Amino acid sequence: MSKGLPERKNNFSGWYTQVVNKAGLADYGPVKGTMVIMPYGFQLWENIKETFDKMIKKTGHVNAYFPLFIPKSFLAREAEHVEGFAKECAVVTHTRLKADKNKGVTIDPDSKLEEEIIVRPTSETVIWSMYKKWIQSYRDLPILINQWANVVRWEMRTRLFLRTSEFLWQEGHTAHATKEEAQKETLDILELYRKLAEDYLAIPVYTGVKTNAEKFAGAEKTYCIEAMMGDKRALQAGTSHDLGQNFAKAFKVTFQTHNNKEQFVWATSWGVSTRLVGAVILTHGDDKGLRLPPKIAPIQVVIIPITKNDHQENDIKKYIKPIVDLLNQSNVRVHQDWTNNSPGFKFNEWEMKGVPVRLEIGPRDIRNNKVMLVRRDTGEKVNYSIKEICKIIPEILDAIQIGLFEQAKSFRNKHTHNAKNYEDFKKIILKGGFVRCGWDGTDQTEKIIKEQTKATIRCIPFDEKPKSLLCIFSGKPAKHEVIFAKSY
Amino acid sequence: MSKGLPERKNNFSGWYTQVVNKAGLADYGPVKGTMVIMPYGFQLWENIKETFDKMIKKTGHVNAYFPLFIPKSFLAREAEHVEGFAKECAVVTHTRLKADKNKGVTIDPDSKLEEEIIVRPTSETVIWSMYKKWIQSYRDLPILINQWANVVRWEMRTRLFLRTSEFLWQEGHTAHATKEEAQKETLDILELYRKLAEDYLAIPVYTGVKTNAEKFAGAEKTYCIEAMMGDKRALQAGTSHDLGQNFAKAFKVTFQTHNNKEQFVWATSWGVSTRLVGAVILTHGDDKGLRLPPKIAPIQVVIIPITKNDHQENDIKKYIKPIVDLLNQSNVRVHQDWTNNSPGFKFNEWEMKGVPVRLEIGPRDIRNNKVMLVRRDTGEKVNYSIKEICKIIPEILDAIQIGLFEQAKSFRNKHTHNAKNYEDFKKIILKGGFVRCGWDGTDQTEKIIKEQTKATIRCIPFDEKPKSLLCIFSGKPAKHEVIFAKSY
Repeated sequence: MSKGLPERKNNFSGWYTQVVNKAGLADYGPVKGTMVIMPYGFQLWENIKETFDKMIKKTGHVNAYFPLFIPKSFLAREAEHVEGFAKECAVVTHTRLKADKNKGVTIDPDSKLEEEIIVRPTSETVIWSMYKKWIQSYRDLPILINQWANVVRWEMRTRLFLRTSEFLWQEGHTAHATKEEAQKETLDILELYRKLAEDYLAIPVYTGVKTNAEKFAGAEKTYCIEAMMGDKRALQAGTSHDLGQNFAKAFKVTFQTHNNKEQFVWATSWGVSTRLVGAVILTHGDDKGLRLPPKIAPIQVVIIPITKNDHQENDIKKYIKPIVDLLNQSNVRVHQDWTNNSPGFKFNEWEMKGVPVRLEIGPRDIRNNKVMLVRRDTGEKVNYSIKEICKIIPEILDAIQIGLFEQAKSFRNKHTHNAKNYEDFKKIILKGGFVRCGWDGTDQTEKIIKEQTKATIRCIPFDEKPKSLLCIFSGKPAKHEVIFAKSY
Repeated sequence: MSKGLPERKNNFSGWYTQVVNKAGLADYGPVKGTMVIMPYGFQLWENIKETFDKMIKKTGHVNAYFPLFIPKSFLAREAEHVEGFAKECAVVTHTRLKADKNKGVTIDPDSKLEEEIIVRPTSETVIWSMYKKWIQSYRDLPILINQWANVVRWEMRTRLFLRTSEFLWQEGHTAHATKEEAQKETLDILELYRKLAEDYLAIPVYTGVKTNAEKFAGAEKTYCIEAMMGDKRALQAGTSHDLGQNFAKAFKVTFQTHNNKEQFVWATSWGVSTRLVGAVILTHGDDKGLRLPPKIAPIQVVIIPITKNDHQENDIKKYIKPIVDLLNQSNVRVHQDWTNNSPGFKFNEWEMKGVPVRLEIGPRDIRNNKVMLVRRDTGEKVNYSIKEICKIIPEILDAIQIGLFEQAKSFRNKHTHNAKNYEDFKKIILKGGFVRCGWDGTDQTEKIIKEQTKATIRCIPFDEKPKSLLCIFSGKPAKHEVIFAKSY
């Protein structure tokens, strides 16, 4: 099964595609640009989803569901928003088919809609049209709603999990009585995103704010978490938008304040998507396939019996039963592979699927009261006694979780550079990596650098120190210290 | 808040709409036929979803996700299937908008798709197009996949939760090596649906098989759970389809058997939807609003403090803290209402929202070491000592769960009749209720009865005893004993 994985070093993109396929994560759907998330990939997403769902519920957010369909006219209400999304919209124009002569089906022209309908690319417009109905007074605020949903942004160049016409995500949409409260919400959520990425997906991220050119269409400010993938390119892993009063104004959503004044509502929106699954693969994968952080791995421990006959099989089953029971009690997700494939085949398969810990158990282990444990992250093999094994596994899972994070972090730090000058900058970008440098704050500079190097400003990091810096391009005093990189 | 609920007895439909609105369950979306599921309604759905998700995972099923978009031609592959769904399809024809002169947006004609795309009304076709890629040998079987998704079936006459253009559901799609295995799966799932309805939603159901006229478009057999609502009409609450080899043939999905033969794969599909939320309202609601079965209630116990000043408020907070802590420890979902509204307003509001148990606590209760408990199902009020209360609450929740089921069951049984003759049949149907009677098994009889009375055969119940029966319409020997009713 692991045969024929392209070399990660020389063909990262081919390697990615093959891992997604061979690990059984996703497949291409019949309509161009669409994706099928296969059970193993979906379990990974479910674990990410559950983790974040708990985080937002704990902080007072509630889930709801808004319609897939948006009237075409809504999109045009917010000027920047329509600019950002109109070019990639699926448009529903008819509501009926009828049989045609060739036994196929054809559109029934009589079912043409008066106003065309957009399949949501994001839900700000439809949600703010509802908030207009729901918000009258300060008593109705804040509204802290999230939804888990599918959205559609038409794509021609598909990459599973990273760029597909339809993807799954959560989108939070909150409404507040004050600017300060909305700002706080935006940053609180960004912190949850950082936690999700670093503490669960084991992906180190830079946090900061986007430039005007890179912000969400309709936002005042977009905050983000930015990660470095295994090919040293950046991936935007989550964004949190301070929408100011833009959508409230577009949909005329006002509220009565404590002192009986009429004011527009303040808003935020924020989202992470199935793209995070792609980020996990791109950050932690190696030449053998996936390496999954234990906290989100669908299977944390796989048991491979080494048997030659039915008699041995029964012995092994008896031998491992107390181990499995104990692990289950500690909520460790265990899987036993009793298929007819050879042990070697199974090793490769579960390495491809990135299961953090493998236990190998054969007749000799039984005789010696031992279990062979193999770590997926390091490949390290240790023979543990049957007494130790159940105690040691949770510790090893923790160690793997931390180990993957540290490895990714040192990789990222190693490839985050300061550039001496623009020539140096271009060399680094060409070779791959992040550049942390001064920027004069103009759209112009940002645009030229992008044209010349394909690198974009990933964010203005919160910990920027622009004071003594000069712009890497113009040489003028830097307005900000920024992080440049080529990105997904 | 509970003011102005139409009388349930005289205006059931108006009552339903108002309960959905006043309990904060759902609202109408901007596009005709669409629904917004509000946080309280969505929590109800989440609880139903989690319950069923556990059931199917325990029985070996896994979740996955298939695309929203289906090539138009796929729908036509299975002859009955296209008949059933073509008339209510949202069709995507373009993928881009552009600004128009009047600052609005208009379709970009250059973005017209070569083949139009259907928004899934159900996913058999897209899933079986993937199974064709995934299934080669008996080793690839069974596939036991489920997905939680939104689907679209165009509707002009909207009723929130019951009939909307878009709704949320789960759809299971399994593939098997033998006919027997597929049949068993179909019935195993039906049994899970029965459990979900009866043991969690407290809705008694008849289980049985649909007639040919009423079965799923593309199925060999459709099994169902059928419930009686508060207005004595039937509601189909879940269906499980034995698809035979129909979709395997339509998509040419074959597999190699143990003895190296090529055979078409056997299939099932099955679904329940957000319609179940409607069923809960229609089954258990009363003149004060919702009554929720404790097992799926977002809030099981609401605490209403009866205070006149801040001093009392602090006393009450101190007094209830140990109660709340203990209830939380027993996983009882508790909510405290500290809003500024009057106790009377709060009583009405939480009754409208159907919370099973209300605790009222005022200064007098503190002096007497008492708590007033009010049951939503019966209205019964009992003063419990602070010592008893935490022990008694789980017992009372269980009693309410059973009580709601028993009440619904006796209502249903009372209104399930035997008809002496067709005149009698028509009278019962007109008055409202189910009729259990003989049917000669012909489409013709079924059709005429439907035309004359609007009653349809809800199912041929598993426990039918047709032997000595005559057809209620034709007088011929009955082929089946069936259940007739007008339905949602």
